[in-house]
Formats: sequence, C-alpha cells, structure tokens
Amino acid sequence: MVLPLIVSAIYNEKDIVISFISTIVPVSIIGFVLYYKVVPVQTALTVRDGFLTVSVCWILASFISAMPFVLSGSIPNIFDAFFECSSGLTTTGATALKDIESLSKGILFWRAFTHWIGGMGILVFAVALLPSLGIGANTLAATEAPGPTMDKITPKISDSAKNLYTIYTILTLLEIILLMLAGMDLFDASTHTFGSVGTGGFSNYNNSIAHFNSVPIEMIITVFMILAGVNFNLYFYTFKNKRGIRKLLVDEEFRLYIIIITVITILISLNLWLSHTYENLGQSLRFSVFQTASILTTTGFVSADYDFWPTFSKMLIFTLMLIGACSSSTAGGVKVIRFLVVLKLIKRSIQVRLHPNAIISIKINDKKLSIDTVSEIANFIFLHILVVSVSTLLVSLDGYDIITNLSAVLTCIGNIGPGFSLVGPSMNFSIFSDPVKFLLSFVMLAGRLELYAFIVLLMPRFWQQNK
Amino acid sequence: MVLPLIVSAIYNEKDIVISFISTIVPVSIIGFVLYYKVVPVQTALTVRDGFLTVSVCWILASFISAMPFVLSGSIPNIFDAFFECSSGLTTTGATALKDIESLSKGILFWRAFTHWIGGMGILVFAVALLPSLGIGANTLAATEAPGPTMDKITPKISDSAKNLYTIYTILTLLEIILLMLAGMDLFDASTHTFGSVGTGGFSNYNNSIAHFNSVPIEMIITVFMILAGVNFNLYFYTFKNKRGIRKLLVDEEFRLYIIIITVITILISLNLWLSHTYENLGQSLRFSVFQTASILTTTGFVSADYDFWPTFSKMLIFTLMLIGACSSSTAGGVKVIRFLVVLKLIKRSIQVRLHPNAIISIKINDKKLSIDTVSEIANFIFLHILVVSVSTLLVSLDGYDIITNLSAVLTCIGNIGPGFSLVGPSMNFSIFSDPVKFLLSFVMLAGRLELYAFIVLLMPRFWQQNK
Repeated sequence: MVLPLIVSAIYNEKDIVISFISTIVPVSIIGFVLYYKVVPVQTALTVRDGFLTVSVCWILASFISAMPFVLSGSIPNIFDAFFECSSGLTTTGATALKDIESLSKGILFWRAFTHWIGGMGILVFAVALLPSLGIGANTLAATEAPGPTMDKITPKISDSAKNLYTIYTILTLLEIILLMLAGMDLFDASTHTFGSVGTGGFSNYNNSIAHFNSVPIEMIITVFMILAGVNFNLYFYTFKNKRGIRKLLVDEEFRLYIIIITVITILISLNLWLSHTYENLGQSLRFSVFQTASILTTTGFVSADYDFWPTFSKMLIFTLMLIGACSSSTAGGVKVIRFLVVLKLIKRSIQVRLHPNAIISIKINDKKLSIDTVSEIANFIFLHILVVSVSTLLVSLDGYDIITNLSAVLTCIGNIGPGFSLVGPSMNFSIFSDPVKFLLSFVMLAGRLELYAFIVLLMPRFWQQNK
Repeated sequence: MVLPLIVSAIYNEKDIVISFISTIVPVSIIGFVLYYKVVPVQTALTVRDGFLTVSVCWILASFISAMPFVLSGSIPNIFDAFFECSSGLTTTGATALKDIESLSKGILFWRAFTHWIGGMGILVFAVALLPSLGIGANTLAATEAPGPTMDKITPKISDSAKNLYTIYTILTLLEIILLMLAGMDLFDASTHTFGSVGTGGFSNYNNSIAHFNSVPIEMIITVFMILAGVNFNLYFYTFKNKRGIRKLLVDEEFRLYIIIITVITILISLNLWLSHTYENLGQSLRFSVFQTASILTTTGFVSADYDFWPTFSKMLIFTLMLIGACSSSTAGGVKVIRFLVVLKLIKRSIQVRLHPNAIISIKINDKKLSIDTVSEIANFIFLHILVVSVSTLLVSLDGYDIITNLSAVLTCIGNIGPGFSLVGPSMNFSIFSDPVKFLLSFVMLAGRLELYAFIVLLMPRFWQQNK
C-alpha cells in the first residue's frame, strides 16, 4: 500500500493518505508480532495446513485491502469493499460501484494495483504452490505435459517465483510505455496495465476501455491480455532455449488458445457485420477481437456493450466464459487445457463406439496422461458445475432473472468481471443484496484457488481430523 | 395407425380416415416387400449395423408418423409435422402447434398415441438393445448394479420385452380407469394416459392439464408420471420376488429419485408460498408437486405456468431439466444414476485432497463400479454438454434470447417438452424457423438414443470403414 499512498500524496488527497496509513501501521505491527514472536517454531506443513493457510491468506488479504476503502469513506459498506477487493485480488474485475469516476486517484490506483498483486500471487500460487497440494490444471502443466516443469529448470519455488516475476514485470513496463505512446497519461497507463497483465479488468472509467475510443489503445491492450493468458512457463522456456519458440508453437494448449481466439473473433465479426450491428466489417472486427480476447483471458475490459449484440454473438461470449485462458497464466476459469482434455475424451468415447476393443490413450503434446490426471480433470469440471449450480440457486433468492444470476456466478467463478443482463458490461453488481455480494466474493476466491482449497474447508471432516 | 383410424371413424372424420389409410396402405406394402423379398438373408449384425439401424428406424418412424398430419392438412408444413412426430415418438411432448384444440379427434389420438408407442419402444431399446451396443445408463443398470439384470431373469430379449410390455400395459389400463373415475371421458383419459406412462406430455388442450383444474386428476397423473420414471427392471424384480419390495426401497437410484422429488417439491412450495405466488401453502404444494414430477420425469405436462414463478423456483425447475428420471424407464434426460455417480465422484475428489493416498472406489448399491463404467458416464455428460452448447449456438441464429434457446435445446435433448421464456409452458415452438425446428427434431432423437447412436453417424470415419 506504500505505492498508492505515494500516489495519493502526489495528488494531495489528505483523507486517502490517512486511510492508507491507518491500514499500514496496525497491520504491519500485527504482522511483525505474529512473524517474530508468535510463530517462531518451524514445523513441516501438512496438506491440511496448506489448504487452510492458502484460503485464510486470500480472505485476510481481501479484508485488509478493503480497509482503505472503508476508512476513507470511498466505499462505506464493508460488503461492497470486501467484494471490490476480492474482485481485485482474484483479478476478476467485477465492481459493485455505481460511479467509479467519483473515486479519488489514490483509491483508484490501489483498486487497480490489487489486480497486479493478485496476478503476481496467482503466478506463484498456480505454478509453485498448487502442484505441491496436488491440485489444479498446473499439476498437469507442470508434471504431466512435456513442457517446462519448474522442478527441472529451477529446483526451488523462490527461484522460479523470481523468474516469473521478472517476466511479469517486463510485460508490465512494456505495456505502460506503449499505452503512453498511444496517448494515455502515466496514471491511466499504469492502472490499465495492471488490469491487463493481471487479467483483471478494473478500469478507472465507467465506460471501461470504450472511454478512450482509440484503436491503438484497444490493440495494445488486446495483445497484452492475450500474452497474460499464456502459460508463463512457456515464456520461461522460450527465453532459456534456442529452440524454445518452436516448443511454444507446437504446445497443444497454446495452439488451441490461439485457435479459439481466431475462430470466435471471425464468427462474431461476421455476425456483427451481417446483422448490421456496426457499420462495416472493420468496426465489427475491432470490437469482436477485443471482446473475445478480454473474455477468454478472463480480463473483462469492455470496449463495446456486448449485451446488445445479436444472440449468436452473445452465446459465443457465453461459451468463452466457460473456457478461460491457459493454465499457469494470470487468468482464471476452467482453462484451455482442461477443455482440450475433455474434447479428447469425447472424441475417444465416440471412437470406442465404433471399435469397442480399441485402447486409445489421451495424449497432450504427445505425452500420455495417466488415468488419475484425466479423472482429476473430469472431477474438477463436475465440481465446477456443482458450485455454479448451487451458487446460482442461492443468488436467485435475490429475485433477478436467470441470465443475470447465472452470468454473475460464471463471471465470478471464472474471475472475468462483466456478465449479461443486469450484470452486463454497462451495469454493475450493486443490485445484489449484501449476503449475495458476500457469497459472490467467496465464489471469486474459490474460483481463483481452483475450488478445492476452499471446498475442503466446507467439509466437516476437515475440522474433525486429529492430525 | 389402425387404432387412430378406428377413432377417427367413430367420430365420423372422413378426411382423417382417408389420410390414415393413405399412409397405412403404401407403407405396409413397402414393409412387406422389404421384409419378405428384399432382405431374406439372415446375417449377424455388426455394431455399425446396430447404430445405423436404430438411427434410421427412429427417423423413418418419425417421418411415417408425420404423414397423416400432412396428408390430412392438420399440419401442412412437413417440418412442423416431423417436429411433432419426433417429439411424440421420443416422448418429448414439445409442440410447434399454436392451437391444439382445433385438431380433429383422430389426429389428436394419433398424436398422443405416438407417446405410448415411443415409451414402449424406449423400454425395449433402453433395456434390451442399448446394453448390447455397449452404451447408456442401462449398461450400468443392467450389468453393473446388483439389481435385476435381464440376462438373469429371462435369457431372451423378446421375453424381457414381453414382460416390460405387460407392466407398461397394466399401468396404462390402470391410469385410464382412474382418470375416468376422476371425471374424464374415455378419449381424454386415454390420450393423457399415453402422455403420462410414456412420460411424453402432449395434451389435447392448449392449457395442458390446467384445462381440467382438478386436484384428483393432477394427483393421479403425478403418481403415474413418477411410476413411469422408475427403472422398469425394479418392478419386474418386485413382482417376481418375495423380498423384491425391499430391494426396490434400498436401490440407490430409486431413493435419490424420490429424495429429489421430495426436496424440490418442498423448496418450490415454500418459495411459492412465501412469495405469495399462490394464496396458501396447499395451493403452492399442489402446483409444485405436479410440476416437479412432470419436469423430473421429463413428461412436460403443465398445471401452472412456472415461467411466472419466482426465479428461485424457476432455477430449481431448470436444475430438474438437467437431471431426468431413472435409467431403464420411459423417461429421457441424463438420468438420476449418472447424476448420482457424478455426486460420488465429486465427493471422492474432495476426500482425496485430505487423504492423498487413500484409494476410494465408487459404489452403487454396494457394488464397485469399474473405471470404464465411471469414465463412460463422465464422457457421456461431456458429450451431452457439447451437444447442448453447439445446438444452442445454432438455434441462436434465429435471434431469440439466450434462455429461450438454451431451454429449447435442454427440453428437447432431455425429451421434456416445455422450456422457459418464448418456449415456456404457455408458449410453443412455432416461433422457430424450419431449419431450427428440423435441428431440434434431431436433438430430440439424439437425446432419446443416448447421443452416441446419432453422433457416430456424424463421424466421417463411420462411413469410411470397409467393415
């Protein structure tokens, strides 16, 4: 919070400076005491400790991040502030604020900066921590796929984290410079960069990216959203090896990711053009590529209100929401690799009908997946569907229409941002009651942590164990 | 068609009599020629032959069933007539007709009778044929579950078919008598019985069951819909054995089926009551139990327009659409047993997080399921989701809203009948263009045949094989 503190000092926002200091001081003191005095004993962490630590840290981080919002009176309602910060740290980008532009600069900076911190946290979490807990698409990426496994390149988590941070920081600086060249000031360039490389989606304008109405800005953000949605291990590998770029281009997840973006962009462009939604094919292409990239990478920036597009295009956007970007990226969602495995499972199950005795194994990048890995992926998707169904049912107690409820849950669990209907691109989440906003905050966190970390905490058995 | 021919003769409907004769005569002649002259050679059927035969038979049956509708001018559009008959034979009950009551008695009887024929066909298809093709929930029910397997009770398909028909006919006669005692005439009692025991849902009134506004009639139909949604093998077992009834009560699929009906009925009743949708708890219970049973059993009769219910209740109805009734019943949908296996998979995947080395097997009725069976079920559900997604995308080209498109596809693939929004309980499918109606007809057929029988035909490989 030191950085937003400096920003608010520069803009001479006294109340905001005070609210940051009022958060930093007590939290730092508690932190120091806990670190040096209370938990000095080094013991090995069990799997349960791991789940508990990860979940509690994310909830606590959201809560502490919310303090400046509440203390400064920018968001007086604690549920709204918690929602906004869960949304920020999980890089969702859904907002419960009706008027974003009325906020002060320091608060806006902090709001965008949570995306950057969250994106960084996810990289370490997804690449380094999740595999050791034995969950997630990354287990697949890291230990199953023939791509770069962190174990092989750098033996220690802290080393691989350092490398990931380097790539992340380079991308950040590059985008800030490019956006400034395209006409943004340093403040806007920074906040929107945090939103893109973290695949977050908070903008400091009510109209999001549409505010700028600039093709170069849209193009730059499109490219960086797509870059942030790529498996970061692949970058690492590409830079370290001479033939790394070839490895990148033959990676099955990366290829499907690019294919999805290309095909959906073309389909939406044609639909927008033929339905005369925009005046020509160029305009249609401009809005379709941005929105396709924004939703697939789970960023959620908006350059056009897709809720007014024809149903065919809306259905495609809806489909993108169910997929998400690549594993081990800053993006959320089910991830392309799981989607790919499911497609291969379907293909195999049809082949088996014709050749009942054939034994066909599921391969990713020419490497056979174990039965455990495949069933892991299937189970994750079933759990995903269950969590979405139950959450949508609970959200529907607020009484809004089905599309509002379903898309609100999907956009939260997938860490995207905007949905459809009453939570569409030009709307916000302020319509929901406090309990529903609280539920959706947890849906964002659960989605971010690939469900299991949160779901195991809901099991009575988790708390009954002696060990 | 002899039966509806007699009905139209009784009601003195000359045009209809002629249209039935004009169908029966040429089709019978072609049938006799094919049977006695063209295919006299007895050869063993391959798996491919099986898929092709089953698919072609269902399409052909729908087409032939449509002839009297077209020839009599009752439904002049061939796409509408094909839709209506696919809907009838697959026991879906979705209609493209704007005014059902304007049809003649003979045609109305034939329309309802397709449900009865379809329900009968499904019993043989699902219980006897599908397992030999190695697909479907029935594989599980028939060969995996400890319940009654047809092989053990009767060695021949024709024998087990005869037994199933007996139970089916007894249920039919019983319901006709009860409905007449409740005040219906023989015609209405017959058509609505065909709709219930076949889990179809065609009524000869525009308002469906709401037309009668009679609690006894609703209760009788509710009971028979629920009975038709039970695994028919269980009846067989219950009647054959002294301790059969106990076996029925401990059957896991049956128990979950009853639990779902009970819990959802209670939740919807409370929601309708507390939201003052109906004047008291009694009325709320009346409409909720009927609609819950109707949708879960994939019948689709309507006693109240649930599209005007609060969103929470609508979401529950939506959820029921995704489940369907028991395997080896006349109902469609994903089936309770698959849903049960998925729930067990989710539970196990969470347990494994806490006990990474534990080996927990999936059991149904205390019998362990093989890995193949479990992955079979997972793959079926993924294919189901894929077919629903692609179909919804294609349907959305007609331009209606997402809920209309999605619920139209779900209600067709699940063989239910009514959906939401523009295809809600008081609406019909006439809004769609001919190509979309044609697509939805195939979605109904594909859903009815548990997808694979149709999907394999779409594979180029199916047609390339030499053998």
